Amino acid sequence: MASSVLYMSMSLDGFIAGPNERHDNGLGDGGDRLHTWIFPDAEGGDFEAAEQRLRGVNRQIYDEFMSTGAVVAGRGTFEPAGGWGGDHHDGVPIYILSRHPAPDWAAAWPAVHYVSDLEAAMRDAKLAAGGKDVLVHGAGIAQRALAAGILDELEIHLVPVLMGEGRRLFEHLGAEQRELQRVRVLEGEGGVVHLRYRVTGGARPGGRS
Amino acid sequence: MASSVLYMSMSLDGFIAGPNERHDNGLGDGGDRLHTWIFPDAEGGDFEAAEQRLRGVNRQIYDEFMSTGAVVAGRGTFEPAGGWGGDHHDGVPIYILSRHPAPDWAAAWPAVHYVSDLEAAMRDAKLAAGGKDVLVHGAGIAQRALAAGILDELEIHLVPVLMGEGRRLFEHLGAEQRELQRVRVLEGEGGVVHLRYRVTGGARPGGRS
Repeated sequence: MASSVLYMSMSLDGFIAGPNERHDNGLGDGGDRLHTWIFPDAEGGDFEAAEQRLRGVNRQIYDEFMSTGAVVAGRGTFEPAGGWGGDHHDGVPIYILSRHPAPDWAAAWPAVHYVSDLEAAMRDAKLAAGGKDVLVHGAGIAQRALAAGILDELEIHLVPVLMGEGRRLFEHLGAEQRELQRVRVLEGEGGVVHLRYRVTGGARPGGRS
Repeated sequence: MASSVLYMSMSLDGFIAGPNERHDNGLGDGGDRLHTWIFPDAEGGDFEAAEQRLRGVNRQIYDEFMSTGAVVAGRGTFEPAGGWGGDHHDGVPIYILSRHPAPDWAAAWPAVHYVSDLEAAMRDAKLAAGGKDVLVHGAGIAQRALAAGILDELEIHLVPVLMGEGRRLFEHLGAEQRELQRVRVLEGEGGVVHLRYRVTGGARPGGRS
């Protein structure tokens, strides 16, 4: 059975974007630092350049998320990225969680589906992925999927920097402990540690155990 | 030259204590989960029991921080822990950062020094450590030492759990990026990942690089 896997680059202090995120500053101030392991120069989002350059462990991780069978992301991830031109990789179906219908520029892309219900999006994505994993991307969607108990795994690219401020990956989860199972730890170039966990336990209320 | 090394157990979502910390609930609700890799049962703080039981990588890390040459901690770490009976390990000098003088129960211990200035505490601790590293412990002191540029290394015991709420290790650091150098990654029992970093860069203001 396919797993839904969150792939996110995160600083050691937990940030996935710098402060002052805007449409024209999608990663926030200094947020590009979190992605230098994959896009070293100002080539943010240039997957072809990344593919030419990446080696070793970082290449392994890249190949992994670029061979998933479907993508689930939030509108706030998708739209500032120009919708990846309608094709994240290999034309796999893309499910965008949004309360709004797709904007005209995205509605024409056959692989892109705007959906308003996260559980339906995840179910459809798993079915469409044909046995492959589903790439989940975005902090908001991660939080909602964790809260709903429908995120199967986390693949965190832990970047050796303290950002100080910005947007955190893990927030708004309430006072509940969720147990994780460490699945894999890989040391990539540039000091990144790729941490893979399976979300095993249901949430349990915080409290003296 | 001795390094000042922060040793802290932290959940994947960045917490070092659960919510509702009080004097009689020192780790906050559910916070004992963060220390089960070292104190598996309700034996919190029982170093002798830990020493009997620990094996492998977790033992290596334990031995490492128990062979440091001095301890620097905050009053909020020291006092709820009963001041470790005046001896954290091997009678090494203990520097407690506090705006207040030592309480009577702690003032009698020869190894314990209450100090109000963090830079002086760190300098004295390094001198007293006789070439060994200095164990730094506590979130507040970590934040202040990072801000002052006098924390040399981080040894984070990354615990495979999402706490959801509680006290974060990295907060109040301002919008400045601090580069880290990954020094060592060790996989311990119980799914803990021991991450060692050197704080290399000075802080640089957040901003598009």
